[in-house]
Amino acid sequence: MKRIITRQENFEEKEVNLHEALFSNANGYIGVRGNVEEGVPNGWNTMRGTYINGVYEIIPMKQAESLCNLIEKKQTMLNVADTQTICLIADGDVFDLTTGKIIVNERVLDMEQGVTRRHVIWVSPDGKEIELSVTRMTSFLIPSLFTIEYNVKALNFDGLIEIKSYHIADVKNYSNPDDPRLADDSGALLNVDVVKWREDMSVAVSSTKVSGISVASAVSHRLRLPGKAEISYGKEEGRTLYHVKAEVKQGEELSLIKYSTFSDSVREDDPEEFARETLKEAMRGNLADIYEKQKEYVTEFFDNSEMEIDGDEELGQAVNFNMYQLFQSATRDKHCSIAAKGLSGEGYEGHYFWDTEMYVAPFFILTNPELAKNILQYRYGILDKARENAALLGHKKGALYPWRTITGEECSGYFPSGTAAYHINGAIAYTIVQYYLTTGDIDFMFDQGEEMLLETARLWFDVGNYDRAGHFVINEVTGPDEYTCMTDNNYYTNCCAAYNMSMAVSFAEKHSSSKRVKELLDKLGVTTKELKEIKMAAEKMYLPYDEELGINPQDDSFLQKPVWDLKNTPREEFPLLLHYHPLHLYRYQVCKQADTVLAYFLFEDGQSKEVMKKSFEYYEKITTHDSSLSTCVFSIVASRLGMHKKAVEYFGDSIKLDLLNTHNNSGDGVHTANMGGSYMAIVNGFAGLRITAEGISVDPFLPSGWKKYSFKIRYKKSLLKFTVSKSGAVCEVLEGDKIVVKGVNEMRYGK
Amino acid sequence: MKRIITRQENFEEKEVNLHEALFSNANGYIGVRGNVEEGVPNGWNTMRGTYINGVYEIIPMKQAESLCNLIEKKQTMLNVADTQTICLIADGDVFDLTTGKIIVNERVLDMEQGVTRRHVIWVSPDGKEIELSVTRMTSFLIPSLFTIEYNVKALNFDGLIEIKSYHIADVKNYSNPDDPRLADDSGALLNVDVVKWREDMSVAVSSTKVSGISVASAVSHRLRLPGKAEISYGKEEGRTLYHVKAEVKQGEELSLIKYSTFSDSVREDDPEEFARETLKEAMRGNLADIYEKQKEYVTEFFDNSEMEIDGDEELGQAVNFNMYQLFQSATRDKHCSIAAKGLSGEGYEGHYFWDTEMYVAPFFILTNPELAKNILQYRYGILDKARENAALLGHKKGALYPWRTITGEECSGYFPSGTAAYHINGAIAYTIVQYYLTTGDIDFMFDQGEEMLLETARLWFDVGNYDRAGHFVINEVTGPDEYTCMTDNNYYTNCCAAYNMSMAVSFAEKHSSSKRVKELLDKLGVTTKELKEIKMAAEKMYLPYDEELGINPQDDSFLQKPVWDLKNTPREEFPLLLHYHPLHLYRYQVCKQADTVLAYFLFEDGQSKEVMKKSFEYYEKITTHDSSLSTCVFSIVASRLGMHKKAVEYFGDSIKLDLLNTHNNSGDGVHTANMGGSYMAIVNGFAGLRITAEGISVDPFLPSGWKKYSFKIRYKKSLLKFTVSKSGAVCEVLEGDKIVVKGVNEMRYGK
Repeated sequence: MKRIITRQENFEEKEVNLHEALFSNANGYIGVRGNVEEGVPNGWNTMRGTYINGVYEIIPMKQAESLCNLIEKKQTMLNVADTQTICLIADGDVFDLTTGKIIVNERVLDMEQGVTRRHVIWVSPDGKEIELSVTRMTSFLIPSLFTIEYNVKALNFDGLIEIKSYHIADVKNYSNPDDPRLADDSGALLNVDVVKWREDMSVAVSSTKVSGISVASAVSHRLRLPGKAEISYGKEEGRTLYHVKAEVKQGEELSLIKYSTFSDSVREDDPEEFARETLKEAMRGNLADIYEKQKEYVTEFFDNSEMEIDGDEELGQAVNFNMYQLFQSATRDKHCSIAAKGLSGEGYEGHYFWDTEMYVAPFFILTNPELAKNILQYRYGILDKARENAALLGHKKGALYPWRTITGEECSGYFPSGTAAYHINGAIAYTIVQYYLTTGDIDFMFDQGEEMLLETARLWFDVGNYDRAGHFVINEVTGPDEYTCMTDNNYYTNCCAAYNMSMAVSFAEKHSSSKRVKELLDKLGVTTKELKEIKMAAEKMYLPYDEELGINPQDDSFLQKPVWDLKNTPREEFPLLLHYHPLHLYRYQVCKQADTVLAYFLFEDGQSKEVMKKSFEYYEKITTHDSSLSTCVFSIVASRLGMHKKAVEYFGDSIKLDLLNTHNNSGDGVHTANMGGSYMAIVNGFAGLRITAEGISVDPFLPSGWKKYSFKIRYKKSLLKFTVSKSGAVCEVLEGDKIVVKGVNEMRYGK
Repeated sequence: MKRIITRQENFEEKEVNLHEALFSNANGYIGVRGNVEEGVPNGWNTMRGTYINGVYEIIPMKQAESLCNLIEKKQTMLNVADTQTICLIADGDVFDLTTGKIIVNERVLDMEQGVTRRHVIWVSPDGKEIELSVTRMTSFLIPSLFTIEYNVKALNFDGLIEIKSYHIADVKNYSNPDDPRLADDSGALLNVDVVKWREDMSVAVSSTKVSGISVASAVSHRLRLPGKAEISYGKEEGRTLYHVKAEVKQGEELSLIKYSTFSDSVREDDPEEFARETLKEAMRGNLADIYEKQKEYVTEFFDNSEMEIDGDEELGQAVNFNMYQLFQSATRDKHCSIAAKGLSGEGYEGHYFWDTEMYVAPFFILTNPELAKNILQYRYGILDKARENAALLGHKKGALYPWRTITGEECSGYFPSGTAAYHINGAIAYTIVQYYLTTGDIDFMFDQGEEMLLETARLWFDVGNYDRAGHFVINEVTGPDEYTCMTDNNYYTNCCAAYNMSMAVSFAEKHSSSKRVKELLDKLGVTTKELKEIKMAAEKMYLPYDEELGINPQDDSFLQKPVWDLKNTPREEFPLLLHYHPLHLYRYQVCKQADTVLAYFLFEDGQSKEVMKKSFEYYEKITTHDSSLSTCVFSIVASRLGMHKKAVEYFGDSIKLDLLNTHNNSGDGVHTANMGGSYMAIVNGFAGLRITAEGISVDPFLPSGWKKYSFKIRYKKSLLKFTVSKSGAVCEVLEGDKIVVKGVNEMRYGK
């Protein structure tokens, strides 16, 4: 079922924030939180916001102690103009769900139509009963367009219906006095330059003080009435007001369509004009046509990425929800990427992390490779910044991607578990290779991919060194698990580095006769000697292994620390990072998330199954899964190690993380990485999909209680559908070349 | 020679700041920078200041990224009222050394008299020639008193001499826009509450906004004139003005004595009254009498701590300078300690670090044990805060002293190389033991010393753990060398911890029958079992040793890092910390300062001489001495290892660090730790003094070019004078019990 519905008998603060995230509308360019149009009472914790991907302000981030080359400013996403505010007055009674009586209060995320809906029947304190139906959409076809269809019916009275529709330019970013990261006055990041009526179109332009970005929005309305109405066009400080007063009779409906468009100077020379023109264009036709196209668009998306679980309808719904949220988050251009919270909230300030490549990109590589390519092209666009970042860290060569960023400049305030997480280079390199192996897009490799592989490989070669035993070691880096930091020979990082270096060289070697590769090596000044050195370092990479326990220690000193007593840690002390000083955490064997276990998923050839199994069981006991990136990986690796029951359990923890708000912070925005991760738990875990230079294979099992499950992926020129049932896997080639997939029971070609 | 003199033909910005530090007056309670009375041109880099030891404001120290229990505020020393400003107008010409012509410009630190002097002969642009003689004193006997004797003579004219003497309450802390630590507006930390004239006494009271401390100052003048003068008492915003206009004839002298007293609410209930009363009391007698007592006081000090070098007068002068500065810095009460810069400047914000115990206290233990005791009693006073600090870091028991503090609360902004430097506990413990071994003050041990030893020992036991081989290991701490951080098994720290734990237990065991010890153990809940466990951990302490190189690695992973190429590092890239990102530094074998080598000085029994020598030579090659705590220690250990030439060379780098401004930052304040360190380089290094539970011994050598050297120390009840010449050491027992000193050629008893 492609619909998420909540029904509430009342309207309470505690769920407001969560619903704002779950019912947010986004299309990769703009995102509008699912705020209720009329607003919530003052003091309630609400994040009212509209965001444009890749649009940011630069704000100070003073270090408590200034050390050389530390980062002292950061980018932060902007909350742009509020075009969703609509107040309703029913015969003098202000519509407010915290007063009067609620008969129906329903919200729907309709993933088949690509819209959200709200349905309310409410009786005012004076006994006036009204029915409100709202449909909201951020258009996939016209990325700058956001629409609200707002229908009001007088159910038990004749009288005056008033609608006040605002276009508010003087907005602030979210701030929560209880959250020290957001407590100050930095909320006001936009200067309002223009607020005006241009005939019946409201236009606002704002700009930032430091980044020099301007954003424009235009709003216009279409009103359908049973009778006559009085309409006025007001203007207040920083906002405009479209005010409708209409006399209606019982049973009559008033329908308002509010069109908004957004534009920004990152992409357009004249954002104001662009917003105005796009709005005019959008309003030329009918909204019904746009709805129709929206439906076609999402139908195609689901058709491409179809995943069905036969035997568990709720799970199927959750899978669809996750895929839909990923689709809403995915950038449609190369100016930006996919933020940790997509466009559904201000958590992590709209920054792009390694998660985008390692957890989110795999879904798009398999289902919508063009969207995956955007992510990698964005990284290519900031390659020069990554080179500068490497230089700032003292590296003589290579590129180090920033741990968190919008523009390519590092935004980590605490470098030991930010900038020092060099493995982000590995995540990007791994994804480039996966993209290439899956799509066969060699032009991308020649144009951009190999350059990034080489520059990241160079960085690894510069950061590491040979120890006295002749191993290539990497010291003072932070792995994915942030409950240790600046460790030596982090197993995961060393695996990433070896893979990154080895892939960079092997592509160059394989295509050494290609003119394009020669030109690239010349441009970068990469010599044959350098390639040899990098290859050698990859081969000599040190990977920690403990004889006594027969496991791979997370890093050199991990096993000499005491094991954290998780069993006797009270539930309210999780996540540990909110209750313990980091230095305390660093002294224990305790993991926030999969680290070595993630390496086993990505680089499984490096170890025997026995070592991986022992390690898995070891880390299982000391991992808190305080990070949302963790359980999905444990699920995948459990699948691969044949621990099917565990795989299903971990998958269960991952798949509904946002829907059930199990981490208690989905209100700040959805967890896109976990969404990608739970997709992988099925495809790469349960079905055991692997794509390597040797080809494509599966190694499937059917979770108990499921009848069968199926999913579609694109592999090179083919569209494949896998169906896994008790009797194994069937692969149908729906489009494209005949290919062979290892591990299936049956291949079916043609329709 | 107990005098430091500078003579300059001009007056230039570049030396202003340095001279302000070198010629500062202090008495352990107040410190007045050696600013020129009339001020310097706007825009010159000057730190105009008067400080009260232990008086502070609390200011925000926001973390760039908020992690659990990180410190987000800090204490900072206050620049209190300026009572040193005196402007001079000679017949209409404003006295200003940057105009006109300088005939004489001399400054003297007269350590025999305990004063500084300034002597100027200056010709104004108009040709008026004047002679100015200024004597400044912070009284050792009346700690709140600061005096300026200001004498002006008209050398070549008859005319009007005007003197404007200010008492300025609206002052700010130093800020330098080029120094990111001080760049903001936090300079204004004091609110002026009162500025008034009370008859001819100017009184000012100011208070802080957050710490709630108020400071008072009172100023009064005595004028001696050849003729008559017009005197007016003015008041401007935040300041008062004492204005003298006097007609003088050629050759006549006008003499103004400006008395200031300071008081604070940390020590006095009514600081204003205290300042007023003390001022009245001070002015009752003659300044000459106070000078006389000052001289007696410093004579006694030098008599107690006499150190003479026969054969190098300049060195002798430098030795005296260092001892005198230490004496000026030393707290006379238990409210505070000795700051990194003493009271000579705002560098390090007036914080007390481990240096006070490890580098400065040894001088006082040997020469003025009562002053050393103040330092330890201050630590006892903040023991509860240290317990709270330990709890904040997640420790279940024990006390962790803050890395930098005034009140006992941690002020480190960057915890990995601040708070994580747990070895401060070891420095305090070591000093408690040294104080006890040297003085025999067992009451202190019963009352305070053993409690601190036990609580710090408990901390070590809690922070460490047994590894699988049965060693007691200590992970994730930072040693003295800040070019690595959060390392495992830092050799120095582990030595400190073992010593601390062992000493805490052995004192308790030795005095187990004492009622006072029993009561203490009861109070702390220390059981026999706990003592045993602590003792066992000390015995099982792991100390890294590398078979291949035959040295002690600084920590577990030190030797697997590449060696920094110091030879090819350009001179302008030192200190490295100002030119390289810390993460880069952490990845190399490169040391800011003595770390393992310091352990060899303090805990020499732990290793064979051969290992120490090899290690010394190893670390020598990779140590930049970017810290001022380094060369003195290298000198001591070189002495002890018989490398006399090296010992003398390192001593040479240490002894004149401030006088020659070799670290280019003495203007921010003198380096008290290095001053103590260079004292130890002679006493513990050249003379090889050791005081252990077994007794006292020396192992002397005579640096080449020296005829002999001598110094006095107190050991238990005796005053000893050591004289080292070519023929070895002679020890005279000047006072007290007959004792035996090992390693001397001759003992002389009585006078």
